[in-house]
Amino acid sequence: MKKLINKPEDYVDEVLAGMALAHPDYFVIDGATGRMLRRSEPVEGKVGVVSGGGFGHIPVFAGYVGDGLLDACAVGDVFASPDMNPMLESIQFADTGKGVLCVVGNYGGDRMNFDMACEMAEMEDIQSTKVIVSDDVAAANLEEAEKRRGVAGFVFVTKIAGAAAAAGKSLPDVKAAAQKAADNVRSIGVALSSCTVPQAGKPTFEIAEDEMEIGMGIHGEPGVRRGKLKPVDDIVDEMMDLLIADKPIAEGDRVAVLINGLGATPIEELYLVFRRVKARLDQLGAHIALHLIGNYATSMEMAGASISILHLDDELETLLKAPASNPFWKV
Amino acid sequence: MKKLINKPEDYVDEVLAGMALAHPDYFVIDGATGRMLRRSEPVEGKVGVVSGGGFGHIPVFAGYVGDGLLDACAVGDVFASPDMNPMLESIQFADTGKGVLCVVGNYGGDRMNFDMACEMAEMEDIQSTKVIVSDDVAAANLEEAEKRRGVAGFVFVTKIAGAAAAAGKSLPDVKAAAQKAADNVRSIGVALSSCTVPQAGKPTFEIAEDEMEIGMGIHGEPGVRRGKLKPVDDIVDEMMDLLIADKPIAEGDRVAVLINGLGATPIEELYLVFRRVKARLDQLGAHIALHLIGNYATSMEMAGASISILHLDDELETLLKAPASNPFWKV
Repeated sequence: MKKLINKPEDYVDEVLAGMALAHPDYFVIDGATGRMLRRSEPVEGKVGVVSGGGFGHIPVFAGYVGDGLLDACAVGDVFASPDMNPMLESIQFADTGKGVLCVVGNYGGDRMNFDMACEMAEMEDIQSTKVIVSDDVAAANLEEAEKRRGVAGFVFVTKIAGAAAAAGKSLPDVKAAAQKAADNVRSIGVALSSCTVPQAGKPTFEIAEDEMEIGMGIHGEPGVRRGKLKPVDDIVDEMMDLLIADKPIAEGDRVAVLINGLGATPIEELYLVFRRVKARLDQLGAHIALHLIGNYATSMEMAGASISILHLDDELETLLKAPASNPFWKV
Repeated sequence: MKKLINKPEDYVDEVLAGMALAHPDYFVIDGATGRMLRRSEPVEGKVGVVSGGGFGHIPVFAGYVGDGLLDACAVGDVFASPDMNPMLESIQFADTGKGVLCVVGNYGGDRMNFDMACEMAEMEDIQSTKVIVSDDVAAANLEEAEKRRGVAGFVFVTKIAGAAAAAGKSLPDVKAAAQKAADNVRSIGVALSSCTVPQAGKPTFEIAEDEMEIGMGIHGEPGVRRGKLKPVDDIVDEMMDLLIADKPIAEGDRVAVLINGLGATPIEELYLVFRRVKARLDQLGAHIALHLIGNYATSMEMAGASISILHLDDELETLLKAPASNPFWKV
């Protein structure tokens, strides 16, 4: 295991400490177990937006606490759901009487613990509701879309939820905007190498020196196809074909695109991915209204990339482009 | 070789094409060989600031073209100096009658070609001058500091040169500010794994699964010590000791800090590095006036990190904090 870390058991808390030291205006460590990252103050009169999930995907999840983004976030161990308590603490912090939206990746533990946290909040007369992000088209067929995992599409859904809340919308309206984003975002990844969970100490999976896996999940979940590494244009074509088959892109469509590095892939290569994605969208006559290129949803030292496409209407485009401020959000 | 690329011989030009497609407001490909990245228009009445160097370090060098940063940049092949022509074209583009400063990393080819480019510019009555960045304390002892390579300190020197030019300073004053930054910045890296030059197809160097190399250069140049991987706090302590031995840090000093990922190191680990750097600076009673944490000067898929410390006075701090806009510059 080749990592710049101290003891594996201290990894999560020390990274959070580093983030809070580096960005004290954005990130405050809180909660009985120190596993909640929150803004310095809740924003009065605004619907709260929170999230939570396993660690090892920075900036996802906790890195998106910020202005126009999340108010608080529960932090789990590496690739493990937080327990219910920091989720409840996040909801309690974010509530100023207008209720709280929880943006939740479609993982069993995250869903179950947020269900409990929302029930506990209900007992304190805090209104809360959830939007589930399940954007990974590789994780299940369209007929079983509810089984799909949440991956980098979380970034778009969170930005839109945060912007809707910042615009003063009601909880049902914030939820509706976030749900529309979740319904209209599709992602797919390609992995070239494994990550290593610090406390496991060895790679999560093996993959040969000349192989890639299309559709692999951000925790190493099996993808749709493992095969020989191909030129990036061919890889992107295969990924785009899967995305387009799942949700067609027509002439005149407006989309937002996220070319996401999984952690160990050079920036240069992300621009090669973008170049081909843009060529494909140009061929279709679609317009890229906004694009992000960088490490937005990672898996520690996994090499590879994912492509996320969010289909936009006027409301989503406006919310996506609304100002936001955070150490990791840059348009 | 596990890269998301097409043909190795097309790598540089296709990445540049992707950058220009993604950020047309900032990056325009120009020059007879297409190896110059420039802003859309020169800024009239301002000293020009240009750079140039080998490819494979994005955002260094060409990624720092932008407002308050570089006006143009010559682009070489991977880890190879650009030839004189795109350097001359960069100078010609950036000059609006006030002269041009060239910010140049301390590599033989880059220096020699910029010398020629400046001479050629002189024959066209374009005033130009150079500042050499040689911040890598591992590359040579203090007595031979002129032999040191330029590494991530380039980012600070470029920002300060760009801000001085944007503030309307004269060429001698822009040069003086940039030279002061170059004189006051120190860097050191640690490498955990090698990068691979696409046209070579195999790793630049071998390093065992349990080894690290302190002070390795960004092209794989030998460092000061190879040894067993240690906890990150111990590694940072060793790196900070080398930086402090080279240029002492006293109580009350103000510094800017860049915690730079070399390309394949997870963001989480950079925050662990920052955490320890901050603890060390706190112990010394020094104040961090600005910090950057991320992939600012990379070596493709090399794993590892570097620490750069810029010693500030009022002028440098003001210039460093002056507004700048670019896809890769974020404070």
